[in-house]
Amino acid sequence: MSFLAEEIASQPDELASMLDRETERLRRFVAGLPPISFALVAARGSSDHAAEYARYAWAHAAGIPVAPAIPSLHTLYGTPPRLEGALVVAISQSGQSPDVAAVLEEGRRQGRPTLALTNDPGSPLARAADHVIQLCRTPERSVAATKTYTCELGALALFAALRSGDDQRLAALARMPEAMAATLAACDAPAVRVAEALREVAQLVCVGRGLNLCTAQELALKLRELLRVATIGFSAADFRHGSIALAADGLPVLLAMPSGLAHADMRALAGEVRARGARPVVISDATEAGEGADGLFLPMGGAAPEWLSPLTAVLPGQRLALAMVADRGLDPDRPRGLPEKIVRTV
Amino acid sequence: MSFLAEEIASQPDELASMLDRETERLRRFVAGLPPISFALVAARGSSDHAAEYARYAWAHAAGIPVAPAIPSLHTLYGTPPRLEGALVVAISQSGQSPDVAAVLEEGRRQGRPTLALTNDPGSPLARAADHVIQLCRTPERSVAATKTYTCELGALALFAALRSGDDQRLAALARMPEAMAATLAACDAPAVRVAEALREVAQLVCVGRGLNLCTAQELALKLRELLRVATIGFSAADFRHGSIALAADGLPVLLAMPSGLAHADMRALAGEVRARGARPVVISDATEAGEGADGLFLPMGGAAPEWLSPLTAVLPGQRLALAMVADRGLDPDRPRGLPEKIVRTV
Repeated sequence: MSFLAEEIASQPDELASMLDRETERLRRFVAGLPPISFALVAARGSSDHAAEYARYAWAHAAGIPVAPAIPSLHTLYGTPPRLEGALVVAISQSGQSPDVAAVLEEGRRQGRPTLALTNDPGSPLARAADHVIQLCRTPERSVAATKTYTCELGALALFAALRSGDDQRLAALARMPEAMAATLAACDAPAVRVAEALREVAQLVCVGRGLNLCTAQELALKLRELLRVATIGFSAADFRHGSIALAADGLPVLLAMPSGLAHADMRALAGEVRARGARPVVISDATEAGEGADGLFLPMGGAAPEWLSPLTAVLPGQRLALAMVADRGLDPDRPRGLPEKIVRTV
Repeated sequence: MSFLAEEIASQPDELASMLDRETERLRRFVAGLPPISFALVAARGSSDHAAEYARYAWAHAAGIPVAPAIPSLHTLYGTPPRLEGALVVAISQSGQSPDVAAVLEEGRRQGRPTLALTNDPGSPLARAADHVIQLCRTPERSVAATKTYTCELGALALFAALRSGDDQRLAALARMPEAMAATLAACDAPAVRVAEALREVAQLVCVGRGLNLCTAQELALKLRELLRVATIGFSAADFRHGSIALAADGLPVLLAMPSGLAHADMRALAGEVRARGARPVVISDATEAGEGADGLFLPMGGAAPEWLSPLTAVLPGQRLALAMVADRGLDPDRPRGLPEKIVRTV
């Protein structure tokens, strides 16, 4: 079994373990925070899609606006912004990228509280932070991130739940490992069938709305890095503002559309995309959402409130990427053109 | 002449006119602002790429962190964030999209100062704002935005210059219409040659770094909407974190790399991309940057400080998109699959 396949399968257990290990520690950190008017979040790659989740989930569940950090202002230009009122957060699997650490260090310099999410508690990033959340029990060995991504989502959801002071949010999060396991069980065989149907495909679009914009962005990255398929991630609204012109000539359009408030609009978009001659590929727990998708349907199992659904909605897409890798005879642990797991940018 | 060609050519004059008309009005608005710890900026499509510019330029020149707004929290979910300390900004050519207006209205509701950038001072968006900047003298008739995009950049740069209190920034901005005219003159014929070289291309990548990330994002959108070419915009750092796997097999990689602090890293990236078997297409005022680009070089004319270079760097890419439209026998004013200029999302 490849590292990638193993790590995809391990995600429910890793999330449960992270919640066990980190909940009470993070509760104390949250309780001790000074007044905060916004969060500045630094991340790259998959971790940046977890940061995208925080933009939605922290505002939605805890009222906190999130500004994505701009590492180059700290490294290249030497003009960091004023951070009065900010909680400074950095997210990095390896904790090694100097640009991400530079943002956290600037937060310290300006006397602001700092929080790091990383898989390596001995990394430079972890050493620079007031509080560190360790993501997984073991190192991630696949070049393409999966289990660190979902543990990042889980840790960010944990922060939102604690900050909201709503125990029901915490209880819902504690049920997510089970929902993730149910989704992995439900999507395995369908992912193989969809991969076969997409055998000749060289371009894809992924679309999500609201809380699942991160899902679309993350799945687009998985398909680019594992398969070298030119895949663009969009929000439903931004897709409609011009780029929907691409939806034609059988282009597969992967739609992350779990049930919830964003679902109806995503169903409408699936219909528009089909009417334009593109091929919707639907990820959903609502089975009727698969109608008209010509069998290109990736089911989610279990139930999740919408604000936590990115934890389950990403799984069928990860399994699809893995199945497409196998179908094309590629090596899931050695993507072409990506020799290194750790990328250091400045 | 098409509306698109006319509007591309009109950009230096439109910017000069906007600066004449709006500078003193905006100076008074800026002087009257209460204390601000961050800006919340709402926009879609091309206007969202102008918002991306504000993220960099406002922090870089005026120390203001920028959080992109999330319209769906205001419309779909009914959970807007707390806006204490925020300046609320909305950018929309038409001023018609209800989701963008909803963010500004929430700012008013929470008693925060609001600023709208739009081409229609009678639009719902304009009516909801404390202060309105009108972008161009005349309506934009091309479906693909060009002159409203550069006037948005200019208005956002004007805000940063006024807020910084540095008169040299204002003087540099006043010289940009001339630099834009010089760039339009320099890139016209090269754009036609590059369009011919890219005749068979169905996929592209655009990369920018730092202040010109917006340029990469905006040019990617132009190529998608005008040509139905699957084009992905990346920051240089995010491209290196996984998606660089795409750089192979002759894929054209458009690099927005004017001279400045980001230039050296972009030159290094051009070399990496070439070494991987992809084809760099270079936009720069540094002529030696075109070396090894196999003639795929789009020159910028005039001189601009890096923080204002997005105003010039986008022009050769707009001209390239126009030339590719002509080369492929398409209609620049009627892109396939985009019947409407105004898109209303909720």
